[in-house]
Amino acid sequence: MATPEHHLFICTNTRPPGNPKGSCGERGAMEIFTAFKARIHARGLQGKLQINSSNCLKPCQWGPNVVQYPEGTWYSGVTLSDIDEILDAAAEGRVVERLRMPPEAEESFPKPPAPQESANS
Amino acid sequence: MATPEHHLFICTNTRPPGNPKGSCGERGAMEIFTAFKARIHARGLQGKLQINSSNCLKPCQWGPNVVQYPEGTWYSGVTLSDIDEILDAAAEGRVVERLRMPPEAEESFPKPPAPQESANS
Repeated sequence: MATPEHHLFICTNTRPPGNPKGSCGERGAMEIFTAFKARIHARGLQGKLQINSSNCLKPCQWGPNVVQYPEGTWYSGVTLSDIDEILDAAAEGRVVERLRMPPEAEESFPKPPAPQESANS
Repeated sequence: MATPEHHLFICTNTRPPGNPKGSCGERGAMEIFTAFKARIHARGLQGKLQINSSNCLKPCQWGPNVVQYPEGTWYSGVTLSDIDEILDAAAEGRVVERLRMPPEAEESFPKPPAPQESANS
């Protein structure tokens, strides 16, 4: 298989300044995305790790957010200075615990709709 | 966990008309992305499935491309009429075999750099 072993997605969604939710883009996510690509190339990790930008991943107020698959590891508050640590961990099968998205951020994801009562009950 | 059980990313990268690589955007990927979101909502699958748009996923000439995680299932040539089949399969833990990216598309992904010869050999 030549598909990436580890695939990172960074939210680069941008909202207008002053929006109460804030946004990953407003906190420098596009610059972080560009730096991720450059570091993957500089370190010869292409073919093993791939990074893509994505639209809004949902937990806006904790951004910039990064999700790593197939592990399903969610990072939040990512900065330029965290990039090498995230790449090291991904390549070695570890998680950067200090950057894990906090459990309360999971409230940001959509919830399944409430089950409808059966017409017969 | 409230993070999505299945996370789909659709490439919506657009190149100018006439570019020899073509692009997913040029083949209607943005419309497909919007329709995916609407169908997930209409079918009450939010909380279980999430779809995001991404920048170039790499295998441009096979697009529109969709990758589904954590399974790491790559689909290519996705059209509006494939959306419900992809969502059914994702929710039921199946793969839509007819839409799997062909093996030759994997040549599109970056390869690891060739190992450098040791100075001592």
